[in-house]
Amino acid sequence: MSDAADLIDLRSDTVTRPTPGMRRAMAEAEVGDDVYVEDPTVRALEERTAELFGHEAAMFVPSGTMGNQIGMRLVCEPGQEVLCDADAHVVTYEMGAAAAIFGISTRTVVSGLSGRDGGRGHGRLDAQQLIEQVRPKDNWHLTATAAIAVENSHNRGGGLVQPLDQLQQLWDWSRTADVAVHLDGARIWNAHASSGVPLSTYGGLADTASVCFSKGLGTPVGSVLVASAERIATARLWRKRLGGGMRQVGVLAAACTYALDHHLPRLGEDHEHARLLAKRLGVDPATVETNMVVLEGVEAPMVAEAAKARGVLVSQVSASRIRLVTHLDVDRAAVDRAGDVLAELLGR
Amino acid sequence: MSDAADLIDLRSDTVTRPTPGMRRAMAEAEVGDDVYVEDPTVRALEERTAELFGHEAAMFVPSGTMGNQIGMRLVCEPGQEVLCDADAHVVTYEMGAAAAIFGISTRTVVSGLSGRDGGRGHGRLDAQQLIEQVRPKDNWHLTATAAIAVENSHNRGGGLVQPLDQLQQLWDWSRTADVAVHLDGARIWNAHASSGVPLSTYGGLADTASVCFSKGLGTPVGSVLVASAERIATARLWRKRLGGGMRQVGVLAAACTYALDHHLPRLGEDHEHARLLAKRLGVDPATVETNMVVLEGVEAPMVAEAAKARGVLVSQVSASRIRLVTHLDVDRAAVDRAGDVLAELLGR
Amino acid sequence: MSDAADLIDLRSDTVTRPTPGMRRAMAEAEVGDDVYVEDPTVRALEERTAELFGHEAAMFVPSGTMGNQIGMRLVCEPGQEVLCDADAHVVTYEMGAAAAIFGISTRTVVSGLSGRDGGRGHGRLDAQQLIEQVRPKDNWHLTATAAIAVENSHNRGGGLVQPLDQLQQLWDWSRTADVAVHLDGARIWNAHASSGVPLSTYGGLADTASVCFSKGLGTPVGSVLVASAERIATARLWRKRLGGGMRQVGVLAAACTYALDHHLPRLGEDHEHARLLAKRLGVDPATVETNMVVLEGVEAPMVAEAAKARGVLVSQVSASRIRLVTHLDVDRAAVDRAGDVLAELLGR
Amino acid sequence: MSDAADLIDLRSDTVTRPTPGMRRAMAEAEVGDDVYVEDPTVRALEERTAELFGHEAAMFVPSGTMGNQIGMRLVCEPGQEVLCDADAHVVTYEMGAAAAIFGISTRTVVSGLSGRDGGRGHGRLDAQQLIEQVRPKDNWHLTATAAIAVENSHNRGGGLVQPLDQLQQLWDWSRTADVAVHLDGARIWNAHASSGVPLSTYGGLADTASVCFSKGLGTPVGSVLVASAERIATARLWRKRLGGGMRQVGVLAAACTYALDHHLPRLGEDHEHARLLAKRLGVDPATVETNMVVLEGVEAPMVAEAAKARGVLVSQVSASRIRLVTHLDVDRAAVDRAGDVLAELLGR
Repeated sequence: MSDAADLIDLRSDTVTRPTPGMRRAMAEAEVGDDVYVEDPTVRALEERTAELFGHEAAMFVPSGTMGNQIGMRLVCEPGQEVLCDADAHVVTYEMGAAAAIFGISTRTVVSGLSGRDGGRGHGRLDAQQLIEQVRPKDNWHLTATAAIAVENSHNRGGGLVQPLDQLQQLWDWSRTADVAVHLDGARIWNAHASSGVPLSTYGGLADTASVCFSKGLGTPVGSVLVASAERIATARLWRKRLGGGMRQVGVLAAACTYALDHHLPRLGEDHEHARLLAKRLGVDPATVETNMVVLEGVEAPMVAEAAKARGVLVSQVSASRIRLVTHLDVDRAAVDRAGDVLAELLGR
Repeated sequence: MSDAADLIDLRSDTVTRPTPGMRRAMAEAEVGDDVYVEDPTVRALEERTAELFGHEAAMFVPSGTMGNQIGMRLVCEPGQEVLCDADAHVVTYEMGAAAAIFGISTRTVVSGLSGRDGGRGHGRLDAQQLIEQVRPKDNWHLTATAAIAVENSHNRGGGLVQPLDQLQQLWDWSRTADVAVHLDGARIWNAHASSGVPLSTYGGLADTASVCFSKGLGTPVGSVLVASAERIATARLWRKRLGGGMRQVGVLAAACTYALDHHLPRLGEDHEHARLLAKRLGVDPATVETNMVVLEGVEAPMVAEAAKARGVLVSQVSASRIRLVTHLDVDRAAVDRAGDVLAELLGR
Repeated sequence: MSDAADLIDLRSDTVTRPTPGMRRAMAEAEVGDDVYVEDPTVRALEERTAELFGHEAAMFVPSGTMGNQIGMRLVCEPGQEVLCDADAHVVTYEMGAAAAIFGISTRTVVSGLSGRDGGRGHGRLDAQQLIEQVRPKDNWHLTATAAIAVENSHNRGGGLVQPLDQLQQLWDWSRTADVAVHLDGARIWNAHASSGVPLSTYGGLADTASVCFSKGLGTPVGSVLVASAERIATARLWRKRLGGGMRQVGVLAAACTYALDHHLPRLGEDHEHARLLAKRLGVDPATVETNMVVLEGVEAPMVAEAAKARGVLVSQVSASRIRLVTHLDVDRAAVDRAGDVLAELLGR
Repeated sequence: MSDAADLIDLRSDTVTRPTPGMRRAMAEAEVGDDVYVEDPTVRALEERTAELFGHEAAMFVPSGTMGNQIGMRLVCEPGQEVLCDADAHVVTYEMGAAAAIFGISTRTVVSGLSGRDGGRGHGRLDAQQLIEQVRPKDNWHLTATAAIAVENSHNRGGGLVQPLDQLQQLWDWSRTADVAVHLDGARIWNAHASSGVPLSTYGGLADTASVCFSKGLGTPVGSVLVASAERIATARLWRKRLGGGMRQVGVLAAACTYALDHHLPRLGEDHEHARLLAKRLGVDPATVETNMVVLEGVEAPMVAEAAKARGVLVSQVSASRIRLVTHLDVDRAAVDRAGDVLAELLGR
């Protein structure tokens, strides 16, 4: 395949290219110097996002990693720890940032080991399991647990949606325990589209939340951190310190606003495509909760290479596991073609 | 003044808005996922910038702060120190990032105290003065000096251009002393336009250099770090860790490429405007080396407010010091008008 | 109990008080300024310890925590990770130091889950299980695994001794994988006394090792870090930076030398005492590998309080788990008395 | 000189060896496990020291460096800065610890440049000069100044005693400015003995203070940090994290208590010796405020080596500067002999 345009890229929903409409919105964006907090397009996006999630304030950041890391720093001091699932993005794909730049320890539990999830799910939130691991703040030996991070939907969990009752249980407990909750909402839009739970409900169960626009929503760059006004004021100091203070950011924020208007409503399509793909490949559609399909027990490197030769890019999660992600740039025809290619390769 | 468009904004060259041509270049940019290093527009910009400065490799970053901080981290380990001028941007306007995120000490000298600069210049590089402050690496008490950071042109020094002979002396000495040199080249384009010294010459006198496109060059967002290929490989790890890994960055890089083609050649205009402004305001034009004019001995808050009321925005550097910066969005007519307004206010 | 002297303190082997002989050795120690590396008693102890463990060099530190943390820092850069057992002292009782002061991530496995240990042992080293978790160093998303930390004997594992074949397997693999091994040898003396494996064999299977003198060996203060000469030179810089550089340390080192001569040979006694205690309390003596006895399934707070009222101090590891530790200050008669008290309380 | 006992060691007051009386006190010390806060001798020393300096609480630490660093951390968050003299111990001899382990920036002023000290004194506190450098806490670019560190007496300032009126002025201002004051009181005993100002007065002009027992007071090891009870509770977490938590510390604390009883009252003798030495060597005795004599304009390496050959050890502060420090192990006869040796060498 010499033409990139012909490739069907199922590696991730981060690979989407801005649509003509989005590009137009970017080209026409009103801008100002955001380091001086003078970019009207950014301010509008921040206000809208804060409102969507029922928080007081919000701040644009260049990446989900920065949103997550600053979000955790707002609720966890150096020398304290954040507790999360062993497969969480914040401990798996963010290069040890919490320790490296903030002096924050991370400690993990392997979710689902308790069997409450039928052994299936990586990453399915089990509130009680996390609560049992929390360490007190006044002990002279133990690392104090300051916060718990939850990922929803869960990337390495195959796009699973966290159960609302578990989120609620964790939140209720956290209010009595002086432990904060951070939401890694990189794909909270997918969770929302799948479960029908309002974004404000999800937002209301977290002290800080990072939500990303450059995955399912299809913008080139950008995440937004939501929290209280006081915390966002502190967050701005940390963003500057990390090098996340940018200037005429309206050109990026305009794409995010466009995505809220035009791409958020269509996420159900990606989920439908994922279920179709699962069915075609003999994967139980019940395991497809959002826009990801996981193929287990395959020779991942071989399959990935063969698929690539036929114009389909897939992601190798491990030696025996492949992940397919549907998104804006993969229409029904592409889904069908990818399904055919992979079904043949897998003999399914 | 109710209309922002009528304001003449001389606070900084960071406030420029993208021109129609630049917006068009952004809207038409070919893009890919830069976290996968697949964005062709970014790759091209990185290669071009590396070549311009005579380095092997380069990496796009969302801000000059991130470029400077990663650049210094590449040549300085936690617990070691970077030495620089007391007015350097890296210690003045980057919120203690070196210590906070990298564990790097910073130590400063007050440049010009030796009198070699006639007492005038804040920030004028005096190689010998810095060299004398360097501390050895094998001492069991002292903080080892791993690197020296040089800013060119120098922001708080009123846009002064560092003397080539001092840069050369520092560089020659550093090669014998196992001390690295980092160039904060946020406005290296202005130094180059003013001095005529090739960018590759400046680049050749530094181990790492951060150059910024969102100041004089007028793009909305973006800096590029140049260094050896090995160092840039490490830099990519740090960029990801700091949350600077972005996706379809080509939309931003296209603006930078456009700026190299169309805005770099016109920087002399800004310098001419600054000299005009200086003359109009009774400031010795010899002190205006690039695009900044510094008014000393004024009641800064009062002047700034009065000027604003008349449509001219200026920057208060201290209670008695005002800075005017010319740039892309300030044409000759605006310079004249601003000159009139300020001259009247200052009674000059 | 009003008299502390009458208490039988089984909480930990850290509570031992220096014996008259040890105090005499301390009082007569020849000393110098160790920050200038001029204390002859310290130098002698460092040399002797290095030799015991077959390493080139050694450095005295005020605590096992400092020994472990510097030891790990020598083989792991900020932003990289150390992998270890979830119950390891370095991640449980050192207050998140690795992240907080060095920017090092820690990641844990729950040892024994694989069932190779019959489900019994917390903390029993399973080399393969760790190896499978190691992450590569050149990935742009994952935290690189730079080192594995092993604890021997294992405190929270009830004093278990790590199997030599597993240590060897881990070491052999590590040599091919550019991954370092750090030994938390706080109680390596007990492992040695129990297994008969020479200290130099244990030392030979680690890049860095921290060994402690204020636990089973009974000194008031002190640990020693052993490593290559080059690494120890770096370690001295970090010790100074952490505030571990002390002056006439010979007064402490003399106690350590005394302990090597007089207390190391008698550790078997503590182990015999622990087995006696186990038998008396209905705990399988096969689970007692060194100087600790773990009582499972008890109401820990109640038992601890009741025992204290009768003059026996024990340690609550969790709500249902009590730990008894034998040591220098607990002779056979005390063991018998403690056994009686606890047996009655537990109805065993 | 082959016999160390014959050497007159004027390099530092850290080189003192414990006297027979002090060794006896150490050998007879009642001890407990200080990590469990059960060492009675340590508790007594902490309470006594807190009271001496008029603070609520205190904590024993293994070194002045740890006392200073934790003291500063208690009043300064990562990303904020501590302001101090350019020659202060905390930025000169503590290896960049503030940045390296705590993420704290340090910024320095060259004291005395204002000329208020007649050009003479390195390190003489000029309250106004420091106050002018303080940066606000709510700025989005600048590093916030959280604390000012003062050293008294000042080591590199040749043992000078800080003027009480300047200390008072700084303190009064700090109360209105939300800026904390940390006292590096490594040699506060000497300042007190020289000025007659009560220790509680000095203590009352600082939020946190580290005072050292292993310099002029002559103990082998130990400093104490004093502060509010709440801050000391936090300090204990940091001490554990840094590896400063030790066990039967009473053996060291007993020496400190002995020193308060027996060595504090005799410090005037060291000061008298220093003045004698100054006079003998043609140094203006008015510059000798405590136990240090600084020889300026000498060929330091040559003098140091020649003196050593004749049994006198001195400290080279720079290529042209030698420091002589009197202390417990240098009696009048030794002072005279050292004076003779040096006078001859210097031709004075």
